[in-house]
Amino acid sequence: MPSVSTAPRSETVAVPPSRQALARRLSKVRSHTLELAASLSAEDQCIQSMPDASPTKWHLAHTTWFFEAVVLGPLDASYRVFDPAYALLFNSYYESLGPRHPRPQRGLLTRPSLNAVRAYRAHVDAALQSFIALANSATWEEAAPLLELGLNHEQQHQELLATDIVHAFSCSPLLPAWQPAEPGLRLAGHAPPMEWLAHAGGVVDVGHAGDRFAFDNETPRHPVLLQPFELASRLVTCGEYLDFIEDGGYSKASLWLSDGWAAVQAQGWQAPAYWLAPGDPRAPSVHWQVFGPTGVQRLDLAAPVSQLSFYEACACAEWAGARLPTEFEWEAMYGKPGITQMTGHVWQWTRSSYDPYPGFRPLAGAVGEYNGKFMVGQLVLRGSSAWTPAGHERPTYRNFFPPAARWQFSGLRLARSPA
Amino acid sequence: MPSVSTAPRSETVAVPPSRQALARRLSKVRSHTLELAASLSAEDQCIQSMPDASPTKWHLAHTTWFFEAVVLGPLDASYRVFDPAYALLFNSYYESLGPRHPRPQRGLLTRPSLNAVRAYRAHVDAALQSFIALANSATWEEAAPLLELGLNHEQQHQELLATDIVHAFSCSPLLPAWQPAEPGLRLAGHAPPMEWLAHAGGVVDVGHAGDRFAFDNETPRHPVLLQPFELASRLVTCGEYLDFIEDGGYSKASLWLSDGWAAVQAQGWQAPAYWLAPGDPRAPSVHWQVFGPTGVQRLDLAAPVSQLSFYEACACAEWAGARLPTEFEWEAMYGKPGITQMTGHVWQWTRSSYDPYPGFRPLAGAVGEYNGKFMVGQLVLRGSSAWTPAGHERPTYRNFFPPAARWQFSGLRLARSPA
Amino acid sequence: MPSVSTAPRSETVAVPPSRQALARRLSKVRSHTLELAASLSAEDQCIQSMPDASPTKWHLAHTTWFFEAVVLGPLDASYRVFDPAYALLFNSYYESLGPRHPRPQRGLLTRPSLNAVRAYRAHVDAALQSFIALANSATWEEAAPLLELGLNHEQQHQELLATDIVHAFSCSPLLPAWQPAEPGLRLAGHAPPMEWLAHAGGVVDVGHAGDRFAFDNETPRHPVLLQPFELASRLVTCGEYLDFIEDGGYSKASLWLSDGWAAVQAQGWQAPAYWLAPGDPRAPSVHWQVFGPTGVQRLDLAAPVSQLSFYEACACAEWAGARLPTEFEWEAMYGKPGITQMTGHVWQWTRSSYDPYPGFRPLAGAVGEYNGKFMVGQLVLRGSSAWTPAGHERPTYRNFFPPAARWQFSGLRLARSPA
Amino acid sequence: MPSVSTAPRSETVAVPPSRQALARRLSKVRSHTLELAASLSAEDQCIQSMPDASPTKWHLAHTTWFFEAVVLGPLDASYRVFDPAYALLFNSYYESLGPRHPRPQRGLLTRPSLNAVRAYRAHVDAALQSFIALANSATWEEAAPLLELGLNHEQQHQELLATDIVHAFSCSPLLPAWQPAEPGLRLAGHAPPMEWLAHAGGVVDVGHAGDRFAFDNETPRHPVLLQPFELASRLVTCGEYLDFIEDGGYSKASLWLSDGWAAVQAQGWQAPAYWLAPGDPRAPSVHWQVFGPTGVQRLDLAAPVSQLSFYEACACAEWAGARLPTEFEWEAMYGKPGITQMTGHVWQWTRSSYDPYPGFRPLAGAVGEYNGKFMVGQLVLRGSSAWTPAGHERPTYRNFFPPAARWQFSGLRLARSPA
Repeated sequence: MPSVSTAPRSETVAVPPSRQALARRLSKVRSHTLELAASLSAEDQCIQSMPDASPTKWHLAHTTWFFEAVVLGPLDASYRVFDPAYALLFNSYYESLGPRHPRPQRGLLTRPSLNAVRAYRAHVDAALQSFIALANSATWEEAAPLLELGLNHEQQHQELLATDIVHAFSCSPLLPAWQPAEPGLRLAGHAPPMEWLAHAGGVVDVGHAGDRFAFDNETPRHPVLLQPFELASRLVTCGEYLDFIEDGGYSKASLWLSDGWAAVQAQGWQAPAYWLAPGDPRAPSVHWQVFGPTGVQRLDLAAPVSQLSFYEACACAEWAGARLPTEFEWEAMYGKPGITQMTGHVWQWTRSSYDPYPGFRPLAGAVGEYNGKFMVGQLVLRGSSAWTPAGHERPTYRNFFPPAARWQFSGLRLARSPA
Repeated sequence: MPSVSTAPRSETVAVPPSRQALARRLSKVRSHTLELAASLSAEDQCIQSMPDASPTKWHLAHTTWFFEAVVLGPLDASYRVFDPAYALLFNSYYESLGPRHPRPQRGLLTRPSLNAVRAYRAHVDAALQSFIALANSATWEEAAPLLELGLNHEQQHQELLATDIVHAFSCSPLLPAWQPAEPGLRLAGHAPPMEWLAHAGGVVDVGHAGDRFAFDNETPRHPVLLQPFELASRLVTCGEYLDFIEDGGYSKASLWLSDGWAAVQAQGWQAPAYWLAPGDPRAPSVHWQVFGPTGVQRLDLAAPVSQLSFYEACACAEWAGARLPTEFEWEAMYGKPGITQMTGHVWQWTRSSYDPYPGFRPLAGAVGEYNGKFMVGQLVLRGSSAWTPAGHERPTYRNFFPPAARWQFSGLRLARSPA
Repeated sequence: MPSVSTAPRSETVAVPPSRQALARRLSKVRSHTLELAASLSAEDQCIQSMPDASPTKWHLAHTTWFFEAVVLGPLDASYRVFDPAYALLFNSYYESLGPRHPRPQRGLLTRPSLNAVRAYRAHVDAALQSFIALANSATWEEAAPLLELGLNHEQQHQELLATDIVHAFSCSPLLPAWQPAEPGLRLAGHAPPMEWLAHAGGVVDVGHAGDRFAFDNETPRHPVLLQPFELASRLVTCGEYLDFIEDGGYSKASLWLSDGWAAVQAQGWQAPAYWLAPGDPRAPSVHWQVFGPTGVQRLDLAAPVSQLSFYEACACAEWAGARLPTEFEWEAMYGKPGITQMTGHVWQWTRSSYDPYPGFRPLAGAVGEYNGKFMVGQLVLRGSSAWTPAGHERPTYRNFFPPAARWQFSGLRLARSPA
Repeated sequence: MPSVSTAPRSETVAVPPSRQALARRLSKVRSHTLELAASLSAEDQCIQSMPDASPTKWHLAHTTWFFEAVVLGPLDASYRVFDPAYALLFNSYYESLGPRHPRPQRGLLTRPSLNAVRAYRAHVDAALQSFIALANSATWEEAAPLLELGLNHEQQHQELLATDIVHAFSCSPLLPAWQPAEPGLRLAGHAPPMEWLAHAGGVVDVGHAGDRFAFDNETPRHPVLLQPFELASRLVTCGEYLDFIEDGGYSKASLWLSDGWAAVQAQGWQAPAYWLAPGDPRAPSVHWQVFGPTGVQRLDLAAPVSQLSFYEACACAEWAGARLPTEFEWEAMYGKPGITQMTGHVWQWTRSSYDPYPGFRPLAGAVGEYNGKFMVGQLVLRGSSAWTPAGHERPTYRNFFPPAARWQFSGLRLARSPA
């Protein structure tokens, strides 16, 4: 096997522990993606229910292409591209990496088949493991942060895979279940009373610093000056949101932002995206029900409300005599005594537009398109959801979606300013 | 098993030959549908590339539901519905048969799976065979024409299955082939010279009469008065259509109907739907190529041009100093000496709007929605295509599509009026 | 003034009577257009309420441009163009006469002002009168039919001016009146009983022949073969249409063509276009009312129903156990004993698509775009309305609109085939 | 005149100076609106060129209605409403003040006529002057801030009147001029060199405080913590923007935000909204030209670039190796030595989303809908333009528009963060 000795792998002797750790994490993350898709048929994995969502199979392939395009292609001279046609098919939005199949037509890609995509994953996995073991030091230095980025990228797509298949199934009259049970303890039985936790304001540091991984949009860490505020100790529950509905929340224009009210009128919103009112013909019941990863369930009044747009979150907060926190208020309260449900339940809309931090510069190269070019017209969500992969969350994490998006696991936490 | 003796099957003793013949034809037609789908994966069979087209799997299920809804449900008291949810999913457009899943979302039906749909077909096939054997005479008299209708309905969907999967594959950057070869002798090597065959005009009878099956829209047979005209002995070829293109046909407004010219501008039409100009990046070549059931092939100049809209057919005829025939001119020339390619190649757009015949009455009951309610805004096509099931064509057959439709196997034959 | 003696006017000595007659008719028709607009302010005349309708001022200018582009420009060497910019602004759809301002933006043409357009009309009127008096014989021979066409063109636009301003006013919350009273005897007090008048069928000649003016789409005259049929002696009244509404006509899918039912659902149709149900907030009343040229009036049950789409006309006929007549059935009954309301009330939708007659050839030159290029996707209406200019109607006249059009004075007459 | 002595005016004896001053300002502002419209015909004042813009006449009436609905109606018991129908027609977006005529149909309001609207203005003006003179103290205390709001509201509409009529005229093939000359010294001959002015960062107070008028969205004044930055001493010029164009700025995806690049592709943007490239058929020239209030002018390379979307401003800044300032950076530099063109030329897009200030509460009552409900999906612009009414600008003023808006007088100033 003379090819083993070719650059960039020539001088490698022993695999350092950090490489082994990354290799193990890589293996684990990549396997988890397949596990999420395991209960889905090839048909299930092929469809796209709206332009904003992607087919499961596409997620499987795109995350693989990302490693190929960002790591193996540029840095591993021995890498053999699995199929040159895949770059066109599975590039998402990287202008600098060539043309792309139109996003709204991802659901038409019956070819390559699911089996071919699985083979593609295996091919790239093997190449990555080999590359990690054999890359020379200089290459490794360049590759390690990109591999780390690829891992985190794949974790983001794991949650998108979940939200997208749930949306697709929500369009089926059969309302099928994707998973037998929620991954965490989301359904808490009953919710503790909500308490207001005060913060005195002042200068606090926000954003990411240090050696551990974070996305570029969390940097640079910098001080901000907060006014005094109070934050709710827990999330708004389905029961509380039902009170909002039953108090006519969806028919009072005064509670809504102008664009939100227009959306209510145009889309006929009456409840969160996947709620079924009593008597809904799709799953007849005298109770409110909610569709989700586990199919149709009776509404749990103590569970955090989810599948809200930013507009609904704002209107509910207004109705409650409160407001949404800014992303910095949220971050400043992270880890403070008494605060609960900051992560692992639902993403929390903040009253912060997704703007760049002072001094923000995107990553160099193609990956510079990862975050920065989306910094307009979106709102920041903080925390994480029950479907966020374990270990992927951070106090400084900035998730973002347009204000009308309702297919995410997105809810709210109240804040207020002292009178 | 006392249930065997209950109506409607009680007095059956022997299966008459006509029942046996129908049972055999049914079996053959039903099998053929599955054969058409045989080379397609479950993923291929699930997708819908535009609202006008349907997934292969949906065609498999809908044709089955048709027998269930029109024959077994109303006439076979012993029939056990395979799955009550399927009526909602697989009703196409029959208002009188209950609500329907929205047509543009047929591609989201990953459930039921392809395997379940195959089981559905088997279940209904078995029930139909049993019903045919055992129905009493009165029931049989009612059922026989509906079974015949169901058979012809399924044959129509066989061709739609073909046109729809080809359209879906035309949206894939990979442009995959569905079939290894064309079913007929469509690619004729070289075309004979086109001759003008004259008809003296006068009263001719058109439309269907007699005992054999026809759709209601072909009736009643009635006399029409024709002016003298001439009809081309063969179809317009790809080579002739290429002349039209190269003579600037797509950029001369004077050749086009107003709506056609608007479509050319808005859609950017430059050639028939599936033609690839030299240099097309999807399949680089210095030649014109055409995509179709067998994938990308070099353009056969002698083959009949296909995948034309009515607008393009009209413009090409105008360019040629001719016009399209009316549907009655076409029918009057059927079988006349010298006329060729009337069936088995491509459907032929006529200059006849799809209006009802004098005295037309739709069939009674739900099947009355089959044809009549579409009699506005469409044009009649005559003949049949290489993908029309054998034996399904008739001289009186009236196919119909909106004028902008380009995903059918649709071409043209020239006509003219004497000066 | 040597220029007076140059061609094409040199040898003219006396104006022949036929020229004088045409000059007088021209003057009368041109004046009538201004009279129709007289009660409208400059603002009223400027607006466009939908792409299908045009501003009054645009009608004034376009009909003038037509004479300039078709007669004066090509045939009168001494003619001085009023403003070269107007060709772009006031060409409607003649591809061969150069580029056009986009149709949906006609309402943005505040310039030229109404006064400028009036001056344009006066300029062209003077030039036309001079031309008629002075053109040499050869020129006159060419010009006369074009002048006649221009007159009839202007008369068509007189009715469109009416339908378009009524539509514009129907969009105003104030629902203003355009005219003090209807021009004719449309509101008849009470309607006579409807009788069925029989026709035995057979060969009849249809279409226009002879020296008098007709549009090219009415030619050539030719024989058609009719089946026996019966035609209603009068139009369907508002009272009868109200019965259709109150019998649930707008909620029974079985009465409607498929596209019609889709329109009912999508547009929320519940009654003809300008009807106000009891309690309508725009003009509160306990009665049904109808908006029209004279503003809001109480519904006259005996008056012919108007402002119907083809779909509604078909559904109402179906509900009545009848059908619409074909255009040839209508024409064959014209002038027969007992038939009433054929012209002067409302245009009558027929069950005939707007197809070319056998042997139809458009006029030569730019005016060939007048009719022929619209012969797809439209339905024929026969007769004329109370707002059709006097003398403009003909038994062979073919008006045409798309099936969903509801802003015309369009109603229906019933027909049926003997059992 | 006994009616003079009725409430709420009974105890008035002398008009205090502050009332006189307000009355004079009111008179002046109201007159200025009419002056802006003076050169426009009734037709010009009636049209609406897109849903985002309004007709001149509508601006005249709406600003009048605002005083009626917010001041006279609630506070002047003796006020006689001019026409009860106007509330429906001229309410813009105040949900709490009743239903509204749909915004996209404002151009269909030929009635009331321009003359009627002028009479409406005169009626309300007289009533306001009387009210100011006679209102009792308690009423005056309530009324004064609302009158002040009404004045500032009218000044905002004066600029919108300008931007909207210019947009309407930009849609005319004639590209007419609205005004003979620019109001200010916008076209400066040649631009001084751009200098970078440094700010050391730190805590600065932003937002409005004190007794003088400001909109609620500028409050409360509060400290923010800035990082060190540099701001350009002047605006980006047309010449510099032309360099961006000629360097391929509109074809380099890497310079653009994702939504901006999509807009470039979808809308075919090649230059600012009203620029005419050399050879544009609407006004042939070998030079770049720009359309604006004074019609088509040769491009002044030294003038500030205008008619930019936020996306274009961002892309140009990126191309220049810089960025847009945040709204607080802009405000912190206001009045600093060396800074020029902060107001009176073009509004300046900032890199700040239009979010509420900490502790922001909308005004009480209907006027609470003035600003707050639009705080999502928009970007802040700072400064003022040459068409902003004199005295209307403030250092704390927050103008806001969606990122794709290009019909405002909107340009950019560069900023950068120290390396």
